[in-house]
Amino acid sequence: MTQRICFLLKVKKALLDEYRATHEAVWPEMRAALSAAGWSNYSLFLRDDGMLVGYLETDDFDAARAKLAATDVNARWQAAMAPYFEELEGQRPDEGLTVLPSIFYLA
Amino acid sequence: MTQRICFLLKVKKALLDEYRATHEAVWPEMRAALSAAGWSNYSLFLRDDGMLVGYLETDDFDAARAKLAATDVNARWQAAMAPYFEELEGQRPDEGLTVLPSIFYLA
Repeated sequence: MTQRICFLLKVKKALLDEYRATHEAVWPEMRAALSAAGWSNYSLFLRDDGMLVGYLETDDFDAARAKLAATDVNARWQAAMAPYFEELEGQRPDEGLTVLPSIFYLA
Repeated sequence: MTQRICFLLKVKKALLDEYRATHEAVWPEMRAALSAAGWSNYSLFLRDDGMLVGYLETDDFDAARAKLAATDVNARWQAAMAPYFEELEGQRPDEGLTVLPSIFYLA
């Protein structure tokens, strides 16, 4: 069954433009690693104050996160992205994200 | 072309449980009106502090909002939901939502 996942992160306000630019040029290997790990229909949305919303669909989010986390390209990508985020407290962005429970769905 | 829409609203912390309960029992006429207006793959996600994230797919969000706004059931639903939200400043929830720009997409 498809899981629909929503997560939040906080981008530093001073770095919003730069963060947007990195996402216009996500490394092709990173895109391929996401797909291979089972991340699909994956969007990121960014509010002016830095609130970042992620939405994706996958068969098993725990497995998809673990599979991605095991790749070299993800380690490099997360290291490159870490400086853009607030409140990670030493975690990588893909470890520090907050997943929100779903309360409603309409196909 | 499919538009992928993300929006935010803020639910009052004291009313979170009640708000969740309303969404386990959304009126069948309201679900039907959403579908008829072109809202699809529509999820709501709720964080513990009241941050509400909506995600949906549609061919034309402006048209889908307008079509829904023209229905009686939506007027009744939005009137029933308005007391749960903060910061609407007199708008209905479906008028007061903040739409976030997309910065990344992976099919």
